[in-house]
Amino acid sequence: MAKLLLLNGPNLNRLGKREPEVYGSETLDDIEHNVREVVEAVQYQLDAKQSNHEGELIDWIHEAEGVYKGIIFNPGAYTHTSIALRDAISSITVPVIEVHISNVHQREEFRHTSLLAPVCRGQIVGLGTAGYQLAAKYFTLND
Amino acid sequence: MAKLLLLNGPNLNRLGKREPEVYGSETLDDIEHNVREVVEAVQYQLDAKQSNHEGELIDWIHEAEGVYKGIIFNPGAYTHTSIALRDAISSITVPVIEVHISNVHQREEFRHTSLLAPVCRGQIVGLGTAGYQLAAKYFTLND
Amino acid sequence: MAKLLLLNGPNLNRLGKREPEVYGSETLDDIEHNVREVVEAVQYQLDAKQSNHEGELIDWIHEAEGVYKGIIFNPGAYTHTSIALRDAISSITVPVIEVHISNVHQREEFRHTSLLAPVCRGQIVGLGTAGYQLAAKYFTLND
Amino acid sequence: MAKLLLLNGPNLNRLGKREPEVYGSETLDDIEHNVREVVEAVQYQLDAKQSNHEGELIDWIHEAEGVYKGIIFNPGAYTHTSIALRDAISSITVPVIEVHISNVHQREEFRHTSLLAPVCRGQIVGLGTAGYQLAAKYFTLND
Amino acid sequence: MAKLLLLNGPNLNRLGKREPEVYGSETLDDIEHNVREVVEAVQYQLDAKQSNHEGELIDWIHEAEGVYKGIIFNPGAYTHTSIALRDAISSITVPVIEVHISNVHQREEFRHTSLLAPVCRGQIVGLGTAGYQLAAKYFTLND
Amino acid sequence: MAKLLLLNGPNLNRLGKREPEVYGSETLDDIEHNVREVVEAVQYQLDAKQSNHEGELIDWIHEAEGVYKGIIFNPGAYTHTSIALRDAISSITVPVIEVHISNVHQREEFRHTSLLAPVCRGQIVGLGTAGYQLAAKYFTLND
Amino acid sequence: MAKLLLLNGPNLNRLGKREPEVYGSETLDDIEHNVREVVEAVQYQLDAKQSNHEGELIDWIHEAEGVYKGIIFNPGAYTHTSIALRDAISSITVPVIEVHISNVHQREEFRHTSLLAPVCRGQIVGLGTAGYQLAAKYFTLND
Amino acid sequence: MAKLLLLNGPNLNRLGKREPEVYGSETLDDIEHNVREVVEAVQYQLDAKQSNHEGELIDWIHEAEGVYKGIIFNPGAYTHTSIALRDAISSITVPVIEVHISNVHQREEFRHTSLLAPVCRGQIVGLGTAGYQLAAKYFTLND
Amino acid sequence: MAKLLLLNGPNLNRLGKREPEVYGSETLDDIEHNVREVVEAVQYQLDAKQSNHEGELIDWIHEAEGVYKGIIFNPGAYTHTSIALRDAISSITVPVIEVHISNVHQREEFRHTSLLAPVCRGQIVGLGTAGYQLAAKYFTLND
Amino acid sequence: MAKLLLLNGPNLNRLGKREPEVYGSETLDDIEHNVREVVEAVQYQLDAKQSNHEGELIDWIHEAEGVYKGIIFNPGAYTHTSIALRDAISSITVPVIEVHISNVHQREEFRHTSLLAPVCRGQIVGLGTAGYQLAAKYFTLND
Amino acid sequence: MAKLLLLNGPNLNRLGKREPEVYGSETLDDIEHNVREVVEAVQYQLDAKQSNHEGELIDWIHEAEGVYKGIIFNPGAYTHTSIALRDAISSITVPVIEVHISNVHQREEFRHTSLLAPVCRGQIVGLGTAGYQLAAKYFTLND
Amino acid sequence: MAKLLLLNGPNLNRLGKREPEVYGSETLDDIEHNVREVVEAVQYQLDAKQSNHEGELIDWIHEAEGVYKGIIFNPGAYTHTSIALRDAISSITVPVIEVHISNVHQREEFRHTSLLAPVCRGQIVGLGTAGYQLAAKYFTLND
Repeated sequence: MAKLLLLNGPNLNRLGKREPEVYGSETLDDIEHNVREVVEAVQYQLDAKQSNHEGELIDWIHEAEGVYKGIIFNPGAYTHTSIALRDAISSITVPVIEVHISNVHQREEFRHTSLLAPVCRGQIVGLGTAGYQLAAKYFTLND
Repeated sequence: MAKLLLLNGPNLNRLGKREPEVYGSETLDDIEHNVREVVEAVQYQLDAKQSNHEGELIDWIHEAEGVYKGIIFNPGAYTHTSIALRDAISSITVPVIEVHISNVHQREEFRHTSLLAPVCRGQIVGLGTAGYQLAAKYFTLND
Repeated sequence: MAKLLLLNGPNLNRLGKREPEVYGSETLDDIEHNVREVVEAVQYQLDAKQSNHEGELIDWIHEAEGVYKGIIFNPGAYTHTSIALRDAISSITVPVIEVHISNVHQREEFRHTSLLAPVCRGQIVGLGTAGYQLAAKYFTLND
Repeated sequence: MAKLLLLNGPNLNRLGKREPEVYGSETLDDIEHNVREVVEAVQYQLDAKQSNHEGELIDWIHEAEGVYKGIIFNPGAYTHTSIALRDAISSITVPVIEVHISNVHQREEFRHTSLLAPVCRGQIVGLGTAGYQLAAKYFTLND
Repeated sequence: MAKLLLLNGPNLNRLGKREPEVYGSETLDDIEHNVREVVEAVQYQLDAKQSNHEGELIDWIHEAEGVYKGIIFNPGAYTHTSIALRDAISSITVPVIEVHISNVHQREEFRHTSLLAPVCRGQIVGLGTAGYQLAAKYFTLND
Repeated sequence: MAKLLLLNGPNLNRLGKREPEVYGSETLDDIEHNVREVVEAVQYQLDAKQSNHEGELIDWIHEAEGVYKGIIFNPGAYTHTSIALRDAISSITVPVIEVHISNVHQREEFRHTSLLAPVCRGQIVGLGTAGYQLAAKYFTLND
Repeated sequence: MAKLLLLNGPNLNRLGKREPEVYGSETLDDIEHNVREVVEAVQYQLDAKQSNHEGELIDWIHEAEGVYKGIIFNPGAYTHTSIALRDAISSITVPVIEVHISNVHQREEFRHTSLLAPVCRGQIVGLGTAGYQLAAKYFTLND
Repeated sequence: MAKLLLLNGPNLNRLGKREPEVYGSETLDDIEHNVREVVEAVQYQLDAKQSNHEGELIDWIHEAEGVYKGIIFNPGAYTHTSIALRDAISSITVPVIEVHISNVHQREEFRHTSLLAPVCRGQIVGLGTAGYQLAAKYFTLND
Repeated sequence: MAKLLLLNGPNLNRLGKREPEVYGSETLDDIEHNVREVVEAVQYQLDAKQSNHEGELIDWIHEAEGVYKGIIFNPGAYTHTSIALRDAISSITVPVIEVHISNVHQREEFRHTSLLAPVCRGQIVGLGTAGYQLAAKYFTLND
Repeated sequence: MAKLLLLNGPNLNRLGKREPEVYGSETLDDIEHNVREVVEAVQYQLDAKQSNHEGELIDWIHEAEGVYKGIIFNPGAYTHTSIALRDAISSITVPVIEVHISNVHQREEFRHTSLLAPVCRGQIVGLGTAGYQLAAKYFTLND
Repeated sequence: MAKLLLLNGPNLNRLGKREPEVYGSETLDDIEHNVREVVEAVQYQLDAKQSNHEGELIDWIHEAEGVYKGIIFNPGAYTHTSIALRDAISSITVPVIEVHISNVHQREEFRHTSLLAPVCRGQIVGLGTAGYQLAAKYFTLND
Repeated sequence: MAKLLLLNGPNLNRLGKREPEVYGSETLDDIEHNVREVVEAVQYQLDAKQSNHEGELIDWIHEAEGVYKGIIFNPGAYTHTSIALRDAISSITVPVIEVHISNVHQREEFRHTSLLAPVCRGQIVGLGTAGYQLAAKYFTLND
């Protein structure tokens, strides 16, 4: 049974509690629940993890090799600062889709650049929490 | 019956004939056909247009006001140079999703910046021609 | 009988319909009407044109040579991106005044630079639609 | 009886004596005389001042609050260097129009940026000493 | 009884042992002791923590919500590199004062920019370890 | 019989009428006539077109595929701003030589960068209208 | 009896009258009164001066040598533009603390850089008018 | 008996498994084994550690003080982003040699700058895994 | 009898009292005395003035027109920030030599650029107070 | 009998032996032979020189004055770094055409800028060794 | 018998005589002697050359082809300015190791960038004159 | 008998023959003659050399150590590009004055920066060939 990994980076555990005018009122649990529905509808399995620790995210990406068919990854602020996460994604063969809930291009300039995008399969930006579901559909669509 | 507009910018009429290692072998007709399938499955209607003329794209965006529920727009090279298209999108209330077939972040640096993204609802990048279909799903998903 | 040309660039046909908090509620028709009043009061004639097409604007500027005493030009977004329009203005001897309705210096940074200003006679910025009338007065003042 | 303030910054006392190929042969007295004519024609009153001292210009702007209906201000070189003048303009509610006699966009690059423009009502650039008169007309036009 | 949190980031555990010509000879224990005195004198309570781990600092900031009246935070080197800490501070409502012992503006250029300052209440820089005490006074002053 | 395409971009229809100190007194007709002579001397055929419209130039480049052995292209101001033309050239297999009449490196800084050069076969710059003829010789030389 | 100097730069005489959403409603008199209370509580004396003239501020800083134990200085806009004030501070041995009422790091980018900070003892930023009092406490604390 | 520390940063646990065309096929175990041979041949002892966690690397560097004669450190991606690691190295007196297996100057531009190099004794770059051994030789050479 | 003007800008009244390691121990009086000796030896007359006020320096430069044969000017910090002084120098025909006592190219980067140099006759930098005397010799040499 | 100088700069003696995928397999002798054929066909004479020494190239350019009708110059890497060669070309009246075999605009960014182009008559880039012949034709064409 | 070339660039003949606090007291002779010892211990032969002339260094690199197994090269200041040397290294197949005695990353910013590093096998920086010996060991190690 | 060295760099042998509007009509011989007069008047001796070869200039600077009391050096274009000359000047203890005949600050931007100035005693710029004589006076003045 094919598996997907839903990975969320720093501060995404605060979703729904933090700046709702930017990120909406859904919590991380809501998101995971909705993505799981999409995924299980096509007989996939979903694992979901969140961490504020760059090193832990790197460890998990390494461990994903050979286990998951795809990773749906919202790297939060590490998107813009972590070459180490970029190298972690390069070091595995599992395809990764970078997802951002808000339209980062409408925000501070330092959020306009992603260090990870060049080593990801693609990006979905600004489509709210629906972005996670579309990423899931992408991975199952190609089946 | 709700309608969506699929808009393609400069050189996308050459899809399938041009740099297949970057853009794949599907033609613009194939893409329009596939998006139409997604859209009609949920009782929407799709109009599809392509132009190499910035002014014509601006005219069409103006005319979309009050007609379409959403625009799926691959602005091609104008993504990176056209403030006029940005202003056109700002001048209407129809939401626009910017789609790029290739992962622009893996290409020349001038393709990393979008002048349009800040006034679009969101972006889907690098997911091949499936990106158009995901954008269509987004607009019908919220119904 | 001396003639002036009132030329408006991309998206200015949307005036009054688009972002009224930035551009006010007057339409392009209102503007043309008001400038015509100023101009005719001193026995000048006014032609007024608008296009979203860079190439069409260039064509019209070429054709203005030997016909008009001055051009009142709001180049819209092409102000910041079109070297071709700059060269068109350089290629004629009719003086051009660049007009912007809004104070572009209060907006996005890319609106702070005009590629056209160095080849125009001058600029009137941020004085609302009255800017067009002041430009008209300038051309008739020197008579 | 409504009053306007005509304020000229550093080196403008040298007008007519300095670089006539850039600034023309009119003196500051000529300019003040011409603006006064425009203003008095519509029953306004004009005060005119000039200083080479940034601090004195700031003091005068503070004192303008509640006294003038508008300020016609050619800040000379302080346009490009004085955040203190910018803050002074922000600290009052009287609208200010920034005027430049020469087309600053045809000169050294450091003259292309105005620190004051974003807090002024607008700018008139490159229309010679007629620019002062057009600014005066703007303030009386709205009456 | 109101509580404050004293938070120190990477390498501040080395204080007193490291580059005394830059940071002085006081240890982190000395600092905590001195701030506690200030705080307890006005019947506040102080918790003090230090970590070299960005993720752990983020976790602690999240946990501060609803517990502390203010955070006195020396983010060390993360000041200049961590957007994730910035987002953590934005995600809570507790006010944060950023403190730097040395005058960072006298040191390497990369220490002149703080990614955190825009989301903090304010900054105290270069006043030695007294800076922590002044920050504490600020929070108790407003009581 | 082999064919070459001579393509001229914006404002080149004004040649001979515009800034003769920069571009000389030859008209576009003169140029086309001189290139035709070179070309027909070696039994080639020449088609010559000019447009001020970026979109029209893109259309013509697409249509050149399979028809011409080479394109001699003076893209005028679009040299420096049009990624869309660059993509058009990339989308065909016909080799293109970029020609500039004036020495663009002696002019404004924005004329020093060509977005098209990297996808052209080569560039001939500053050799006056003889540059067009040398480009023609290049294509016939290799026969 | 030890003395401190409270020095305020351009536009700070407008405090309470100017942009209260940025600077609050306290006037300069209120601030001087509050700092005087802090200072006199520990038997210090306070002199307070304000000027909009860069040259006058320089003169006063020169005259402070040998007279004051410390200077509490809000340089206003000159913070970002005056190397002359920087040199004045370098030319005396009295320590200076730079104070800003608002959090300059939340405002325009040109307010993020201080030319004076590297030659001051330290900075207090964004803590409102309490910042002046904390600076005063710093100088008396070390007694 | 003198001891050296071999420290490897993020993603180096993936060596041999990741991008062999960049990093070769040797694993981290192979490297540690080869360096140990060099070191033990001259009666030194080697400790070897790897972590993906920036904080953990900082902790280990702190603990190295007074224990090791030298540190051979491949900081991986943290080379380019971690001021915190830089401060950690500055906070100890043990000399550190920065080693990179690949020639970072042939790769992405962000890999050309090392934040750590200025506080290290030196750098060995691009000499493959032999670089670690040469660093070890350096420390034992001076004995 | 020909006259020269020796003009010194901000903080130069502190010479000999300020940072002697940078500027030496000579006072402004010493300098004026030494230059006067050089000048009077060749039957010239010297006027010497100093001000910390930019506006006052501008006034004096205006007044120099028609009075002095040359100006020896050390603009201090205004060298790097005052376009107004630059315009003042441009507005007169008296030649000006810019003198700096210290080698500004060995100091902070912002001291490496002179806004005045392009409108001065020349510059003498880093030759200590002898630089003033060499400038005086230059003006009398050409007699 | 008119003479041309064919001048080749650093490393061009390695042509045919060096990076044939960039520069092709022709040697410098081949090039000189081919250009000589073109030149002698129209009764011109060709001198050909190559040096890796910037100073020697400068000497030769000086000596060309009054001897040659034109110089065909491939400055190799000195194109991008030698202001001294630029000044040498400016110091003579013989026109120079800069030739590059490869399309430098497809290579490293530092090869995109020519310090020499602004003082040359023109440039021929990317047309292989035929570029030398076209340059020769240019000089003989005008005869 | 395998041979290595030890090549030293500009000013390295002054070693031991020049800035000993930066470069130490060893002379170039000492260095050559020490490297020769390392090399001859494993039956290699060493040639050693030094020049201040960029052109001569290029000539020697060309002549190294087919003669040496490796080049140990300290290019001195040409490291940062010579694209011609870079091209020379690219034009041969002999591997080159770039050596710097001092830690260039602790010095002026222009010494942080090497134009040669991307075409060298690798770099050894900051390890004093031992760096030359380690480079020699590298070449003999692989035997 | 004390000796001075007058050193001229690339293209200065062309003085009087080259761009007289920039450099005047005096030849290098004239300059040497005039400086010799100044020098011999105070019983000094002058040696004068010129080279277009960077390496030769470096050699001569090395050889100046212990021979000359000062060097008057016009480095021509190498001023802006030669770190190697900078290092040569640093490697000797003889003071060097950098002289430029023209006012380099009125010319191309790349002539505004001197790589040598920070290691020279000082600079004399824009005072024509008199600059050489003033430099000579400086060295003899201090005797």
